[in-house]
Amino acid sequence: MARKIIVAAAQVGAINQDTGKAEVIARLINLLNEAAHHKVQLVVFPECTLTTFFPCHLFQTQEELDRYFEHGDITQSPDVAPLFEQAKTSGIDIVVGYAERTLEGNGYNTCIYFSASERKVLQKYRKVHLPGTVEPFEDPEAINQLEKRYFKPGDLGFPAFRAPGLVPDVVKQSTLKAGQSTVGRGDPIFGMMICNDRRWPEAWRMYSLKGVELVMFGFNTGGNMAHLWGSKPMTPEQAKTEALFHSKLVQQANSYMNACFSISSARCGLDDGKYDLIAGSAICDPEGHVVAEAQTEGDELIVANIDLADCRQGKEKTFDFSRHRRVETYGLIDKQTGVVEPELL
Amino acid sequence: MARKIIVAAAQVGAINQDTGKAEVIARLINLLNEAAHHKVQLVVFPECTLTTFFPCHLFQTQEELDRYFEHGDITQSPDVAPLFEQAKTSGIDIVVGYAERTLEGNGYNTCIYFSASERKVLQKYRKVHLPGTVEPFEDPEAINQLEKRYFKPGDLGFPAFRAPGLVPDVVKQSTLKAGQSTVGRGDPIFGMMICNDRRWPEAWRMYSLKGVELVMFGFNTGGNMAHLWGSKPMTPEQAKTEALFHSKLVQQANSYMNACFSISSARCGLDDGKYDLIAGSAICDPEGHVVAEAQTEGDELIVANIDLADCRQGKEKTFDFSRHRRVETYGLIDKQTGVVEPELL
Repeated sequence: MARKIIVAAAQVGAINQDTGKAEVIARLINLLNEAAHHKVQLVVFPECTLTTFFPCHLFQTQEELDRYFEHGDITQSPDVAPLFEQAKTSGIDIVVGYAERTLEGNGYNTCIYFSASERKVLQKYRKVHLPGTVEPFEDPEAINQLEKRYFKPGDLGFPAFRAPGLVPDVVKQSTLKAGQSTVGRGDPIFGMMICNDRRWPEAWRMYSLKGVELVMFGFNTGGNMAHLWGSKPMTPEQAKTEALFHSKLVQQANSYMNACFSISSARCGLDDGKYDLIAGSAICDPEGHVVAEAQTEGDELIVANIDLADCRQGKEKTFDFSRHRRVETYGLIDKQTGVVEPELL
Repeated sequence: MARKIIVAAAQVGAINQDTGKAEVIARLINLLNEAAHHKVQLVVFPECTLTTFFPCHLFQTQEELDRYFEHGDITQSPDVAPLFEQAKTSGIDIVVGYAERTLEGNGYNTCIYFSASERKVLQKYRKVHLPGTVEPFEDPEAINQLEKRYFKPGDLGFPAFRAPGLVPDVVKQSTLKAGQSTVGRGDPIFGMMICNDRRWPEAWRMYSLKGVELVMFGFNTGGNMAHLWGSKPMTPEQAKTEALFHSKLVQQANSYMNACFSISSARCGLDDGKYDLIAGSAICDPEGHVVAEAQTEGDELIVANIDLADCRQGKEKTFDFSRHRRVETYGLIDKQTGVVEPELL
């Protein structure tokens, strides 16, 4: 049984510190309209889609920082609501990333899955693997990465979920005998992660243990940062090539090792003419091949017609977890955070 | 402090069912002599180095099967001992894979690390992730993969170990204060896996949680099997290209995500003129780049001069586990073997 859907990543180019949200939303709606033209059913927007990538700046006041955050229900925010209205009108599900400030005052790097057919948010994800540092670099010329200062680690785990309305003629749970599974036969099972999570195989595995057929993530990845951090001398151009290489490598390999599709969507370009973010938005299949890839460093829609049934080969053969995984040997993975030398174990 | 060593993979081409072990050992010693010429300090030989890849055959008697197995201490086996003698003479550490029959009669797909300076086996590893099936295919023309029939899953876990004598001027534990670690400063920390293990991120992570700087594995990977298993029609040539792509992809990505070097060594070529195994032996650096790669499908030594200190950038920054891992979100990984649909969790 084919499980075909048309999906897209909506890559978003430079956004400056003083770019207004209305202007950004207009660009996102343009991309959504282009998606509708291609009969796309699901569009993934980037991490922190709505503003410049502010964790590269140190802010002196809470007020300066908070203008980059969303407060309350984002679908009801006057600035952002038109995007969700357009999604409903076009009948396109969307994933949108944003900085979330909770009622308790906690900051999270968040994304949501909004279903056009259900007309509501089906799932929220909060970024688990925050990169960077709490304290800014001493060098005033260095480009900071202050996610650990501005956000708490996500507290929702890796919540897989079903997305109804995308694939016709799914097998319903009620039609099955007790114990029979609708994984790969019912409504598709999706998972979201954000940026740096993609480098952590644990995140992918938590999802694939829940039958996920498609992982979606946005990213903001510095193109002119690695040469400052690295122990090897590199030009900014070399550092950018390396960052793109790593981004693609982990998406391809983790899609393969978890027998799932993946969609990545970049916030990219040169924010404020200075802060360079890599592009390279991509859609990968469960065999690890890139099936669509951005060609620019600006606003760009990439589209693929995918068949989720292609996950079956991996999930039923090489990566049939029930036959091949050996959990009795994996004990340290959720018990030991850091490295311990073998003699001390 | 540089931690340079010269390492090699010794790829081994076709071995037929009736090829004698003495003939194989002579070929391995040739490769070892070539390694000595290049001042190599460590050579990795393939999985089941000493015989044809017998799990593609169904044997009718235990006697037929057992001629492919080693019984007792392999370093004392009259057939194989000359290899270890040569390793000692050349001052080269070696990793050798073989089928092991224990005193209790259990079969394991095993490899050992033999230290030339210590003149003994430092560590044994038994393959954890056995691919294939217990029962042969019904189609008599299909090429079997009967590892689950002939071997038990490894019972030694993922045992990281120190290899002395390779890197000069290491920091000794006794010179450090309590709590200070010699990871990355003492004798290098190594880990072994075998073939299919390389596709399982859990195996790599168990090692990197123990500070491993170099993962070594041999493989026997079918080049004319995937087109028989796959759900998509493929020619044998396409299946072989795909198998090579996957092999390289997982080695590169897992080396990067675990900030370690890796050496893979293929048993390859056309056994008995019929059973095709991919080549593609490779040495990867901790940034995921291939630094040396086999060019043939036969006996071939590939050499790289590596600096284990290059692991530091990954281990101290992007993949600084103690700062970035979130074990509270990884709970299913060692508790749930197979896939469970999200609603049932």
